[in-house]
Amino acid sequence: MATTGKQLFTTLSPEGTLTLEVAETEFREPTGNQVLVKMEAAPINPSDLAILTGAADFENAEYSDGKVVARMPEPFNSASKARHGMRLPAGNEGAGTVVATGDSDMAKALMGQRVACVPGSAYAQYAIADAAMCLPLGDHSAEAGASSFVNPMTALGFVENAKIDGAKGILHTVGASNLGLMLQRICNEDGVPLVNIVRKDEQAELLKAEGARHVVNSSDGDFMANLRTAIDATDAFYGFDPIGGGTMVDSCFRAMEQVAAGKMKEFSRYGSNQPKRMFIYGRLDTGPTTLMPAYGFGWTLSGWLLTPFLQMAGPEVAGRMRQRVLDGLTTTFASNYKAKVDLEGMLTRDAILDYKRMQTGEKYLVTPWG
Amino acid sequence: MATTGKQLFTTLSPEGTLTLEVAETEFREPTGNQVLVKMEAAPINPSDLAILTGAADFENAEYSDGKVVARMPEPFNSASKARHGMRLPAGNEGAGTVVATGDSDMAKALMGQRVACVPGSAYAQYAIADAAMCLPLGDHSAEAGASSFVNPMTALGFVENAKIDGAKGILHTVGASNLGLMLQRICNEDGVPLVNIVRKDEQAELLKAEGARHVVNSSDGDFMANLRTAIDATDAFYGFDPIGGGTMVDSCFRAMEQVAAGKMKEFSRYGSNQPKRMFIYGRLDTGPTTLMPAYGFGWTLSGWLLTPFLQMAGPEVAGRMRQRVLDGLTTTFASNYKAKVDLEGMLTRDAILDYKRMQTGEKYLVTPWG
Repeated sequence: MATTGKQLFTTLSPEGTLTLEVAETEFREPTGNQVLVKMEAAPINPSDLAILTGAADFENAEYSDGKVVARMPEPFNSASKARHGMRLPAGNEGAGTVVATGDSDMAKALMGQRVACVPGSAYAQYAIADAAMCLPLGDHSAEAGASSFVNPMTALGFVENAKIDGAKGILHTVGASNLGLMLQRICNEDGVPLVNIVRKDEQAELLKAEGARHVVNSSDGDFMANLRTAIDATDAFYGFDPIGGGTMVDSCFRAMEQVAAGKMKEFSRYGSNQPKRMFIYGRLDTGPTTLMPAYGFGWTLSGWLLTPFLQMAGPEVAGRMRQRVLDGLTTTFASNYKAKVDLEGMLTRDAILDYKRMQTGEKYLVTPWG
Repeated sequence: MATTGKQLFTTLSPEGTLTLEVAETEFREPTGNQVLVKMEAAPINPSDLAILTGAADFENAEYSDGKVVARMPEPFNSASKARHGMRLPAGNEGAGTVVATGDSDMAKALMGQRVACVPGSAYAQYAIADAAMCLPLGDHSAEAGASSFVNPMTALGFVENAKIDGAKGILHTVGASNLGLMLQRICNEDGVPLVNIVRKDEQAELLKAEGARHVVNSSDGDFMANLRTAIDATDAFYGFDPIGGGTMVDSCFRAMEQVAAGKMKEFSRYGSNQPKRMFIYGRLDTGPTTLMPAYGFGWTLSGWLLTPFLQMAGPEVAGRMRQRVLDGLTTTFASNYKAKVDLEGMLTRDAILDYKRMQTGEKYLVTPWG
């Protein structure tokens, strides 16, 4: 009794051709702790785009119904060698109704329930998901629960990680993103000072409407001076950046060091003793990260991903975080969508060129059944 | 009863003029746990050059007896704002004889002894040093003991830090440096696999003469393949780099990730779960560090300095390290010098242009009394 339905696949050839297509697929029966979810809604997050579109050229791609073929330029094609020839599903998270389960009690308890889930194959009409990662949504709609994992848990993860590391304040380089607004609300609730960087005055207004006190516009001529003032006021020597490429991380480290050096009584050739920590958790800019030697040796830059963080933090912290998300699903952790598309609609030129831009407040929601 | 003698000073003006000069100075009496050391020998380490020469233009400087005036270009002059107008001593470490002490028992016990010390003002005929950081040299010469802190403790620090972090193998990007050769000898003694990167075949030979098993030449066409092979053989996902600028750190992360990804059973858009760790402990290249997005998010890059490491490791570990250095002063931790110069000799055009190049095996020793 196989279940069939549509699913989106992404395939990169060794020659550098990226093919996205919707295909009729047979979904196997869930076993053990798995559940089969009839997917009702799934967001397109920046973290989905890495595998979905990457750096491929969708301006000049070949579009047909439910299919698009684009060129992946170098060095990105070679850098993705590990996926060459693999037909991969996409879509980290979503929400839907459990229609079949494996044998475990945890899986069986979810039968018939609407859940948020993290299948990694959410751009499909059905998906196999791990029951342990499912969040029963009660009376919430699939749309309300579709984005309840990646952004909420990441934003909460930043604050939890800061607490574990003993950081007093937090800096976020894309303050007005969906995730950034959540982070501001979490920091308000927890009394953690947050420095937000934005690129436009409208974004600053969005944040201030959420109660943000420290918003710095990187387009302003006195950006660095304002950033130093904000860091000084918050002790935000601990920051998160989803841009990755370019000099934003460098600017943050430099401003942090200038604040710390300004408080030193003696000059040190090695810079201040203030530990400075930045995390790159996304790659909105796929260009190189550039670090100038302008902040001594007391700095650490890491990649940051949710799954390793949750493993490090342990099940108790993760469970507490999930409960907090459920409690605040329509308030603290609410997401907004610019447009809804079905699976074929995801693969039109207009849609791809639009969601690939990852503009603030312009998130897409995929509804696989139309 | 003031002690007078020559001392080297380095002064950077706000306008970008770097002045190095030897001046007659009055040395104050040591107090408390301080000792006054009549300096006999002090090495010029790369870590001394940051404050001594920095990025200043010594090709076109004005040289006179015991004095040189050079231009400091931008952005380096602005980046050094914190030292503008300050007349700073230089020379991290050296060796000499204790000629006066403060009141503490520890200080008094050193009276008349030859010691290695870390005054931060070693390019002088006398220097005030902290007795707790002095290492009595017994019958060893000042020359033998002059470099007993910075390089030996740093190389030992790498191995201790790797042990604390549970790293199996270590990678070093400038394998044939004075410090690199020490690191190889330490790793041999401790049975820690070490991957060395060199730029020339002669450097590979130097290392092999020390018993190195994994030496990779970055000038070879198959450098990356060789680097992957060496990392795979040693589990060296943990590396130290004194270059800083350029793409060496990036190449190491990339090779580490390629080794780890090659062992994965499933493709992950986020890269492997293998934590990859690199430390920048110097700035032989003062250009920007460039990191390409080619190794997922499981990486961490930090600055590394000896003093914060010793504070983190604690006095017991630091004490054990110092004893090991003393035990191996003429073997494991022996340094070699290309040339000896006095204080005025340090400031000649030929000398500066030579030691500023920081070529492998071409270290200078300063003998302040000629």
